[in-house]
Parts: sequence; structure tokens; C-alpha cells
Amino acid sequence: MFAAMGQTQDSILDAMERNCVPWLTRMIVEGKYIGWITEEDKKPIASAGLLVLDWPPHPLDHAGDHRGYLLNVFVEPDYRRRGLAHALVDLCLAEAHRRRIRVVALHSSDAGRPLYETVGFRATSEMLYVEPDEA
Amino acid sequence: MFAAMGQTQDSILDAMERNCVPWLTRMIVEGKYIGWITEEDKKPIASAGLLVLDWPPHPLDHAGDHRGYLLNVFVEPDYRRRGLAHALVDLCLAEAHRRRIRVVALHSSDAGRPLYETVGFRATSEMLYVEPDEA
Repeated sequence: MFAAMGQTQDSILDAMERNCVPWLTRMIVEGKYIGWITEEDKKPIASAGLLVLDWPPHPLDHAGDHRGYLLNVFVEPDYRRRGLAHALVDLCLAEAHRRRIRVVALHSSDAGRPLYETVGFRATSEMLYVEPDEA
Repeated sequence: MFAAMGQTQDSILDAMERNCVPWLTRMIVEGKYIGWITEEDKKPIASAGLLVLDWPPHPLDHAGDHRGYLLNVFVEPDYRRRGLAHALVDLCLAEAHRRRIRVVALHSSDAGRPLYETVGFRATSEMLYVEPDEA
């Protein structure tokens, strides 16, 4: 997904991939990551995942103590415009509902935004601080 | 904080407060919430907290598996314009650094945004889905 977005060096992507395997394994074992992969002829063509985050009770969900985070939404270029991403996002939201998670966040690419708006996602006031690289 | 923002019913705020106590206790015990309260004459006048979230390795931090979330940043009205919030945010970022957390998120009110921009926070592409209330 990040390779397709084209803004990250290959060496960083390789390191990310290595580091993601133990992280994802741990999250799945702890019941905090639920992922879907769509296959055609045993070849993966699309994916999406739901991460369950600790989150304080909030005006948007005063009784909840978790928030969902939608990630790894990706469709191989040859399989786009067929509703695969929409179907996967619906699966993620249904899983969140099943777990009584009422609020789900994501970070959207420009290309993904119209789909997420259709489903009911809205822009937020989030801000991010990234520690500068050490000189 | 949410009461001061004035957009949430008192009954919701009461429920949130009740639900926050066990959540916060659990997070502190698990080492996932670190909070600061500024006092004057033993009276709390300002606060801030850092929540440690599970987060996958990402182009912004390819070796990390956590992200920080800054919350509960609040200064009592009589004590504003003295740099208390700025000092508390700096404490949170220093704690994140100590834990090798390189990316910290928050949701800003309009009033808070200039401070966060000064510190180095930037707007993101986050979107949020909130499950509709059942009829």
C-alpha cells in the first residue's frame, strides 16, 4: 500500500515490513487486529484491517473504552472500481459494531476519501507531531 | 474540559466521568497512561495526559510499534495565557521521547490549535465514523 502511494524509500518499506510481522502477530494473538484478504484464484487482490485501540470514554461514545482504526485498505490496481474496498470497509464496520465499538478512525489518501465519505466518515481536527530525525 | 467546550449534555458528561475512572485506573496500572496535574495551593489548575497506543510500523516511524496520543489538555480559565498548557505539552512530548515514541497525535479545539502548531503539530487526513444512535 505504501509502496503504491510512492512516497516512501524502499529501504524504509523493507524495514517496515520486517517490523510489521511480529507486531501484527502479537495484535492478532491479543485479539486487537482483525484482517481480511480478498482472493481471486488463490491470489490476494484486496485487503483491509481493523485495529482495536484503547480509548477513553468520550462524548461520541460515553460508555465505550475502545476505538476502532481502519488500516491496510488496499486493492490491487487491476481490481479497482469493482466495489472491493467498499465491501471490505463494510466488513470492518460490521466487526466494529459486533464488538460494540461505535467510533472508527482512519487516515485517508486523496484517492480514498470519496469512498469513506460515502460510508459516513468525516474529517477530524487531528494533528500529528513527528519527532525530527536526529542530526 | 468537555464541559468547558459546552457541546455535551450534563447527563453524558456524568456518564463519561463514571466510565473514565475504571478506564484510567486500568491504563495507569498497565503503564499506558501518564498524566500530569499542575497545582497551585493544592488546587488543580491544569492537566495533560499521554496515552500510549498500539500502532503498526509506519513510514513516519518504521521501527516503532506505538504511537502517543495527547489528551486531557486543560487549563482552568483564570490561569490561562501563562504558558501552563505549553509546559504540559512539552512534558508529554518529553515522556514520549523517553519511551522512544516518535509520533504523537491529538485532537485540537480551535482555541488550542495555535499552541499545537507552535510546538510542531500539523493537521492530518484523519476521518471518523460514528455509529448512528439506534432509533
